Amino acid sequence: MGRKGMLLIGHGSKLRYNKELIETTAELIARKSDEYIVKPGFMSINTPSVEEQLEAFRKEEIDMLVVVPLFLARGVHIDRDIPEILRLPEGSRRGTFQANGRTIPLIYANPIGSDPLLAELMLKNASDAIAELND
Amino acid sequence: MGRKGMLLIGHGSKLRYNKELIETTAELIARKSDEYIVKPGFMSINTPSVEEQLEAFRKEEIDMLVVVPLFLARGVHIDRDIPEILRLPEGSRRGTFQANGRTIPLIYANPIGSDPLLAELMLKNASDAIAELND
Repeated sequence: MGRKGMLLIGHGSKLRYNKELIETTAELIARKSDEYIVKPGFMSINTPSVEEQLEAFRKEEIDMLVVVPLFLARGVHIDRDIPEILRLPEGSRRGTFQANGRTIPLIYANPIGSDPLLAELMLKNASDAIAELND
Repeated sequence: MGRKGMLLIGHGSKLRYNKELIETTAELIARKSDEYIVKPGFMSINTPSVEEQLEAFRKEEIDMLVVVPLFLARGVHIDRDIPEILRLPEGSRRGTFQANGRTIPLIYANPIGSDPLLAELMLKNASDAIAELND
């Protein structure tokens, strides 16, 4: 069993913060898990684009490509634009991908959504701010 | 020592997903921690607005108000609009708030930003999608 590819999709922004967030998170994921080759790609404004990173994954020795949108919640990008780029069958989150002359599964994951980990992260940001600012 | 207020700020959206995310996360935070009275408020489109929830907090028995933006990263709302609504001193993340006739500290926390917990959440979304779709 080889490694999986993870395409981490960001929205992109004229400001630098979205790009920094996506790139740093891609590094943190790569450091946390040997299971994935992680590449960040952007829907607009920033580069590399989603399409460019899909091309880059075609040369990787991967058994599966997982596409993870680093978006807070569903919306037009999640429900329409990304499935179109991935050429997913209508209404499906499972497609195929050509890499190294092989056809491998492509899996489209959910955006962040409501999750106990997100609640934990908000509590952490709150207590960090209190610790830092309430002297 | 009494409880703290947490105003969880969402962007707001014409679609229902952002509102659902903010409200569900507010409930998860309240369930996780007795420390806070949590209220969700929105910058635009959805209600209650940030201003309405600030008014609601004036009647609560709280020792401190922590404002936590449920945004992925910094941007114009985070850097300009929210500090204006909170009447924070220029460039500061610490202000004051009037509640029950008392002046209490107001602390403005960071948005999500890059964090190991976010990397963990993305890995979880990836493996959930694989488990669900790769049969």
